[in-house]
Amino acid sequence: MRNEIGVGIIGTGFMGKAHAFAYGSVASYFPESAVPVLQVVADVNEAAARQAQEQFGFRRATADWRDLVNDPAVAIVSITAPNALHREIALAAAQAGKHIHCEKPLAPDAAAARDMVEAATAAGVVTQAGFNYLQNPLIRLARDMIAAGELGEITSFRGIHAEDYMADPEASWTWRLDPAGGGGAIADLGSHAIAMARFLLGDITHVNADLETAIASRPAASGVSERRAVEVDDIARLTLRFARGCGGHIEANWVATGRKMHLAFEVAGSKGALVFTQERFNELHFYRAGGDARQAGFTRIEAGPQHEPYGRFCVAPGHQLGFNDLKVIEVAAFLRAIAGDGAAAGPDFREAWEIQKVIDAALRSSAGRSWQAVS
Amino acid sequence: MRNEIGVGIIGTGFMGKAHAFAYGSVASYFPESAVPVLQVVADVNEAAARQAQEQFGFRRATADWRDLVNDPAVAIVSITAPNALHREIALAAAQAGKHIHCEKPLAPDAAAARDMVEAATAAGVVTQAGFNYLQNPLIRLARDMIAAGELGEITSFRGIHAEDYMADPEASWTWRLDPAGGGGAIADLGSHAIAMARFLLGDITHVNADLETAIASRPAASGVSERRAVEVDDIARLTLRFARGCGGHIEANWVATGRKMHLAFEVAGSKGALVFTQERFNELHFYRAGGDARQAGFTRIEAGPQHEPYGRFCVAPGHQLGFNDLKVIEVAAFLRAIAGDGAAAGPDFREAWEIQKVIDAALRSSAGRSWQAVS
Amino acid sequence: MRNEIGVGIIGTGFMGKAHAFAYGSVASYFPESAVPVLQVVADVNEAAARQAQEQFGFRRATADWRDLVNDPAVAIVSITAPNALHREIALAAAQAGKHIHCEKPLAPDAAAARDMVEAATAAGVVTQAGFNYLQNPLIRLARDMIAAGELGEITSFRGIHAEDYMADPEASWTWRLDPAGGGGAIADLGSHAIAMARFLLGDITHVNADLETAIASRPAASGVSERRAVEVDDIARLTLRFARGCGGHIEANWVATGRKMHLAFEVAGSKGALVFTQERFNELHFYRAGGDARQAGFTRIEAGPQHEPYGRFCVAPGHQLGFNDLKVIEVAAFLRAIAGDGAAAGPDFREAWEIQKVIDAALRSSAGRSWQAVS
Amino acid sequence: MRNEIGVGIIGTGFMGKAHAFAYGSVASYFPESAVPVLQVVADVNEAAARQAQEQFGFRRATADWRDLVNDPAVAIVSITAPNALHREIALAAAQAGKHIHCEKPLAPDAAAARDMVEAATAAGVVTQAGFNYLQNPLIRLARDMIAAGELGEITSFRGIHAEDYMADPEASWTWRLDPAGGGGAIADLGSHAIAMARFLLGDITHVNADLETAIASRPAASGVSERRAVEVDDIARLTLRFARGCGGHIEANWVATGRKMHLAFEVAGSKGALVFTQERFNELHFYRAGGDARQAGFTRIEAGPQHEPYGRFCVAPGHQLGFNDLKVIEVAAFLRAIAGDGAAAGPDFREAWEIQKVIDAALRSSAGRSWQAVS
Repeated sequence: MRNEIGVGIIGTGFMGKAHAFAYGSVASYFPESAVPVLQVVADVNEAAARQAQEQFGFRRATADWRDLVNDPAVAIVSITAPNALHREIALAAAQAGKHIHCEKPLAPDAAAARDMVEAATAAGVVTQAGFNYLQNPLIRLARDMIAAGELGEITSFRGIHAEDYMADPEASWTWRLDPAGGGGAIADLGSHAIAMARFLLGDITHVNADLETAIASRPAASGVSERRAVEVDDIARLTLRFARGCGGHIEANWVATGRKMHLAFEVAGSKGALVFTQERFNELHFYRAGGDARQAGFTRIEAGPQHEPYGRFCVAPGHQLGFNDLKVIEVAAFLRAIAGDGAAAGPDFREAWEIQKVIDAALRSSAGRSWQAVS
Repeated sequence: MRNEIGVGIIGTGFMGKAHAFAYGSVASYFPESAVPVLQVVADVNEAAARQAQEQFGFRRATADWRDLVNDPAVAIVSITAPNALHREIALAAAQAGKHIHCEKPLAPDAAAARDMVEAATAAGVVTQAGFNYLQNPLIRLARDMIAAGELGEITSFRGIHAEDYMADPEASWTWRLDPAGGGGAIADLGSHAIAMARFLLGDITHVNADLETAIASRPAASGVSERRAVEVDDIARLTLRFARGCGGHIEANWVATGRKMHLAFEVAGSKGALVFTQERFNELHFYRAGGDARQAGFTRIEAGPQHEPYGRFCVAPGHQLGFNDLKVIEVAAFLRAIAGDGAAAGPDFREAWEIQKVIDAALRSSAGRSWQAVS
Repeated sequence: MRNEIGVGIIGTGFMGKAHAFAYGSVASYFPESAVPVLQVVADVNEAAARQAQEQFGFRRATADWRDLVNDPAVAIVSITAPNALHREIALAAAQAGKHIHCEKPLAPDAAAARDMVEAATAAGVVTQAGFNYLQNPLIRLARDMIAAGELGEITSFRGIHAEDYMADPEASWTWRLDPAGGGGAIADLGSHAIAMARFLLGDITHVNADLETAIASRPAASGVSERRAVEVDDIARLTLRFARGCGGHIEANWVATGRKMHLAFEVAGSKGALVFTQERFNELHFYRAGGDARQAGFTRIEAGPQHEPYGRFCVAPGHQLGFNDLKVIEVAAFLRAIAGDGAAAGPDFREAWEIQKVIDAALRSSAGRSWQAVS
Repeated sequence: MRNEIGVGIIGTGFMGKAHAFAYGSVASYFPESAVPVLQVVADVNEAAARQAQEQFGFRRATADWRDLVNDPAVAIVSITAPNALHREIALAAAQAGKHIHCEKPLAPDAAAARDMVEAATAAGVVTQAGFNYLQNPLIRLARDMIAAGELGEITSFRGIHAEDYMADPEASWTWRLDPAGGGGAIADLGSHAIAMARFLLGDITHVNADLETAIASRPAASGVSERRAVEVDDIARLTLRFARGCGGHIEANWVATGRKMHLAFEVAGSKGALVFTQERFNELHFYRAGGDARQAGFTRIEAGPQHEPYGRFCVAPGHQLGFNDLKVIEVAAFLRAIAGDGAAAGPDFREAWEIQKVIDAALRSSAGRSWQAVS
């Protein structure tokens, strides 16, 4: 008989559902893992909580996240509530001895993130941050190739996370536009690009950033004529220095008309290069310097069972993982970490804190028009 | 409370697992559907059956598919056993009054397929054939655009299903190479391309085919030196005539080195064209004739929530469905059909029989070196 | 001092201009070649001839191609007149002892092509047929790789030449639609695809073809309401057998909405595959079987100076050749052949005759609904 | 009879040849233009000059550029010598009353560029700078679309010029690595990206740059073991502010392994976006916001005769221009400007000076680690 583990999910929106899908199906894809039992779902909107209960088969629903956190049947607390609430919930969950799975960005700022790391460490619970794009088997391949020196000495990184869901100037104000709540494109999208940069190349030491609000005001709410000023960035442009010695650039942009999911990078080194975009995330493009010049070029690697854990989902190459599968892989890694496999964890809260430090440095840099050390 | 419906799955290989994933998660993606309960899994290899029971949480496992078919707790029989067994199992399932979900190709020949259609019709059960690629929201869009006349009068179809899983001459003999069992590339891959052609453009009336065995013999089994002659086709090339008046071509090829999942088509009409490949199945390329010539070109449409039922999986565009999601959509349609929504069904056994007729005509054509009517 | 050689060009349309561009500039790109002197241009429309004289600097213009052919200053006769005239002009040019450069297709049928080959052979003149796409350095690379066995044993060829310049049903009748003159899509476009197939893989022995007139009638002339029946094919679909043992397929289609220059092929063998389209003709995609499975995929080879004679045009890779450059390469090869380098020649009239035999076999096959030997 | 105009070209390398190709063939493509007569070629290496004379048919060759500049038969002086010589030659040419065509970057710094502008203005001669990529018909289309408001209010620009011709750490020192001569990646490649940014979006007002020498030393010459320190940048990363209000980013990188000709940009606005790379420069990708969401996406526009002056080269769309054709278009524009069509000119020296100001600001910014105004 397989072990079971109780899960509580806070939030029922885009990410709340993605977590529910993942916890609900991970046991089928990873037969060696514990079997999550969907115990409680919480949403401040109680009707939404009840609907999620019905949809996913949670044993109960609540409007009070504290009720969920304190339920003895819950061993894992999954936080998909707005960013501004992450710290408070995580601290309560740690105190209650729960393992914590929190959506990105981890917190509104590095100080809050540090609190979360310290609380989890003190409580001895396992943590996971929802940077699901890093769970892509081809991204793991990229990291492994870089680490093995297949690209030689790295000279350059260019990272982009561009989407257009805020491109319409008449799209109304949301919590994402609250500096204390969401944090702008740099927090929402830039955190992914920074996470990718760190995942592939390690520590970022210095940042020079230019954050820009492209659309100065938006309708205060859907259907109203009153407009509200926007205080967060729509576009963030970061110039970077890595501890390993190379430089780079990141753009985070949520008014990038036409782009739906363009989390992209190009890494070049003395022996090779890698090019990737999440728009076609089952492909990784690799150039190997040297060899027969007549046949040189970027090779389009297609994901297949040779790229673990793709084979858990499909034994045939080229059939492709979907977005929700990345979340399943993330949950599987978290469950492995809880089961004691330390190498499986991550990105955990500590890593998410490091990411948040880069964001904070970028905010300081843009405000001060100067280079800032990441500290 | 949601209705439940008992499911039995026969076979635990690539497709057996895909069915188990789909039945196990469909209720989360489609909250209005009945909730499948995984009752029984059957595999002639009893250990495999038990392993699947453990992995997916079936209530019991058996080595005898008849046991599964006759279990009163089972309302849906899902057949993923080798092709040669489809007819016998389906007839037993129909007799037992079960709804039947059968993998493609439906049967070794049209006569067997007809028997299956007649048995299901007589029993009044709902049927579904596993042409999962047709469940892609963008393929539905393609069909709707053609039906709405957005491509004008169709002049041409070119369909390909190319993979390379049999390209290695030292890949050993399998049941797929048994004429009575698998049926060659035309049955395994060509059936998908024919299904696509019919789905988009309707009835095929005449076929002129050239079937070819590219690798004459293969190791009789893994690791043995003895070789066994191959009697089925590795490559099938079909020239087609459609009832609507246009012509086309289909290639099915399982020795297409480098191709992993190239189910592709190009449809051209007087007003537009569509280009697709399953290699990037979250994209559909559309050319609209007329308009501003300076800006004409193929538009790369990315799948998003505007393409139902993509939004069930993800509210954000461009995030992409995976292969297993297509199977979920297939299962959801089957459950809807069982619940009485006739429009949801399909491709059902009747459609799969029509596909099989085209295959049979192609086999006759290639043997006789002549055009053959599909009948 | 470099040698000079007199050139006469017959025709001033699309191809007449392309020839004039090429003969006018080849000496700069190939400094070892003779320097063509544009002596005479002929066009039945004398004003057009005079305009071309002015534009390109021909020494004189004439409305009479015989006048050009018999001019002692002319050593090379370039034929870009309509297909129906090729034979007569070529025979006169051969009789006058001129080297002959003739646009494709070489002739309306194989018999006429044979006459042209025999006349040129008897006269001892050098010939060249205008299959310019074969002059692409990357196509030479493809041929060399296949010949060197880098793809292993070839199993399959798929060739396409699709354009849409006849897709509009209201596009009026032209000489291309005259069976005796142009010859339909198979002659105009199919000849390119057949030339490519032969260039890469050698002799085609058998053909099974389906030729189709998608648009039954067209305006008899621009701006008139009277319609004229179309007697040639708009779409030709050929199933092929090669002497080397493999099979293949070719589609020629001039009503392929959205396609502008889609001369494409995919060749697969036991060890590798090549994919190409003229839409991006400075790229060739190569898959090599075996090797590290984690990094397998199609490599996008970009043309560069390592692919002779790209370096004549540009010392930097990736900068790209244009369509007119292919014609320059063709002319350079012809001049080298005239200068005595037999290996440089081709495709010559003899090769073009072989191509025409395949077309003739396809016409017989389609009319007779049967396989035909190429003879 | 067409007018003739005498041309002298200084330099016989990559760009010297490109100029010779262009002046030698432009009259055929643009029949309304004057006919350039290749009068003199100059190269400090006299043998190279003689070889170029022979190759291109110049009337004479010289080792002394002053000899060329002062030749009365020369009306146009084309400067393709190393950057460090541009100013001196241009001043002499202006003084001699010659029209001046100079390769990019115009000068080692803005002061030198200003001198050149002033000299040309004082002399009343027409100037042209060799930013040939701007001559691409699709780039003209992009500019026109932006100017016409088809992209709405522009929010972002991302420009890249990445190549890998300096990526090998063992590639030896060249004049390009001399700060006074070449000027690093920002001068050689960045100038193209800046030119593109200005061409599409207008004035750049502020720059924040990080210039980096990725490879600290290189062999002092080919085949020697002694190494020489590199003082110029291999990679430049610029954050920009445009006068129109939006921001942007530019990367210039000549150690970008795998990239051969990746001059690329993405421009986004409230109503649409454009994506381009010189790697496929006969294509422009356009996204139009609004419209039918089911069919939204980037449209791949292929160059054709509807994009002037493509039709000068080929009447058929999709056949593609080559790199050398862009230079022909540049020369044609220059000849038109000399003939009095002021609108045809450009980018002229004044524009090249503006580009140089941005480079200077970037150098100051990187040295001072601060934002700099372009002035």
